[in-house]
Amino acid sequence: MLSQCEGSSLNFGVRWQKITIVGVGLLGGSIGLAVRKNRLARHVVGFVRREASIADCRQTGAVSHATLDIEEAVSGADLVVLCTPIGQMRSLAEQFVHVLKPGAVVTDVGSVKLPVVRQLEPLIANAGAHFVGSHPMAGSEKAGVHAARADLFNCAVCVITPTARSHKPAVRQLEQFWHAIGARTIKLDPAKHDALVGFSSHLPHVVAAALARRVLDPARPKEQALLCAEGFKDTTRVASSSPEMWSDIAVANKRNLARAIDMFIAELRAFRFALDREDARALTKFFDTAKSRRDAWCAARQTTTGR
Amino acid sequence: MLSQCEGSSLNFGVRWQKITIVGVGLLGGSIGLAVRKNRLARHVVGFVRREASIADCRQTGAVSHATLDIEEAVSGADLVVLCTPIGQMRSLAEQFVHVLKPGAVVTDVGSVKLPVVRQLEPLIANAGAHFVGSHPMAGSEKAGVHAARADLFNCAVCVITPTARSHKPAVRQLEQFWHAIGARTIKLDPAKHDALVGFSSHLPHVVAAALARRVLDPARPKEQALLCAEGFKDTTRVASSSPEMWSDIAVANKRNLARAIDMFIAELRAFRFALDREDARALTKFFDTAKSRRDAWCAARQTTTGR
Repeated sequence: MLSQCEGSSLNFGVRWQKITIVGVGLLGGSIGLAVRKNRLARHVVGFVRREASIADCRQTGAVSHATLDIEEAVSGADLVVLCTPIGQMRSLAEQFVHVLKPGAVVTDVGSVKLPVVRQLEPLIANAGAHFVGSHPMAGSEKAGVHAARADLFNCAVCVITPTARSHKPAVRQLEQFWHAIGARTIKLDPAKHDALVGFSSHLPHVVAAALARRVLDPARPKEQALLCAEGFKDTTRVASSSPEMWSDIAVANKRNLARAIDMFIAELRAFRFALDREDARALTKFFDTAKSRRDAWCAARQTTTGR
Repeated sequence: MLSQCEGSSLNFGVRWQKITIVGVGLLGGSIGLAVRKNRLARHVVGFVRREASIADCRQTGAVSHATLDIEEAVSGADLVVLCTPIGQMRSLAEQFVHVLKPGAVVTDVGSVKLPVVRQLEPLIANAGAHFVGSHPMAGSEKAGVHAARADLFNCAVCVITPTARSHKPAVRQLEQFWHAIGARTIKLDPAKHDALVGFSSHLPHVVAAALARRVLDPARPKEQALLCAEGFKDTTRVASSSPEMWSDIAVANKRNLARAIDMFIAELRAFRFALDREDARALTKFFDTAKSRRDAWCAARQTTTGR
């Protein structure tokens, strides 16, 4: 069951003494801004890798304190949110696990859940704390803390992926956290999450990238780029996302993504077949099914989120 | 060479006595609104098929007079703009060709040019008037005159497709017309236009439709639609366009579109191959090339159009 969209207009007041954000980019920065705006924690500490990022954090106000020291960052935190690329999460966790406050809740915002949960759940449990995965379905093709927004999670769906081993009060605390910064939550098994986002998010990223590569190939005639308009711009928007991040995600969700690509190619082949035969009825049906499914999805989304 | 973007802020004053728009939907209506706003013609007449459309025209102010009578609509016009689906253009032209004013300029706004030019150029020439094709690269997934906007063509690229037989003053008049409603023009051979838009516009429409169909297939798990977010929404936006119109376009540009789909599938297969081998370097390069090509395109577009 999906929780309701409460918006971030509710004032929740201080709930956490210290929240630590590990990696203060678009998502981490937006969490920091939302937590601070809603006064959800006394201290909002950010761990960053580079000296320059400390100044960025200060400038944007995403955290109340930024540090290059992972132990200082995590020590005493009630809630730790990992917002780095998924490939870095394990080694970072290994660096801070010994300073974790007993009973602390640790989560992440990675786009793939099964490998992250498998690695972090036992590691954090051994330290007497609780790991539960999260995936807020919000973002932007822009990266970095300067693109962060306090309202990024407003009415966004955030998937929480508890397992049979999850500590129930930690799961509830995590749900409250996401609600408090405006998100709607849904609980899904990590494997099921990965299968679903393979289609809804990872496939569109690959498709958009393939389209941008193919159409804007320098080998195409010089007028090609001039004939790309708004439709092309929107269809390829997510192709401007971070290449490193999406390479990581693709590998981490390899099997589900491969399956989604295969089914998508089959869909294109069906269209291609109807086109070869100039089967106007089949072609109209193809576009019509697409339109009616998307319009119904947009209408349902509009009703619940207002956008 | 592409003309500059002048915007529609210039006041051109009355240049045409009568401009006729055949089919007053999104594009026709937007042309009407822009012509009237810029006072480019004394009379802006719209031909529509249904009685109800006359009321819509009155309500939106897209034309100064709307009629169900094609002869009345076209008679005495200096400029006739065909804004119907491409499949209807020939039969409509056959109905009005005998009332065309000698020397009148006739154009269309169809998304495919070679079949339209081949059909209409000789037909209009026989009546002592001049046909030259146009394709303004602007639109919306929304249809109908209620979605029309006077600024739809502001800084949009409009392709004009003269042939060796085109009357040069008619081509110049058509360029001036598009400039006067804010567009930038580029002249291309009709066949070359069709090859280019097969990639830049028609392929993205098929891809977006295939994505919406595949991901929102009712056979997918019930949580699938909830996990579709902003990226999915933008990538599939053009899948909400008119199914009949896009089926027509696909058939009319069959060979170019088929070639674009084949090359696009090859692109996906290359990605799929790198994914199978977990070749992180190849995957990163795939996403990186896409991002750099798209970012460069966006930057160039921003410079010339401000959007």
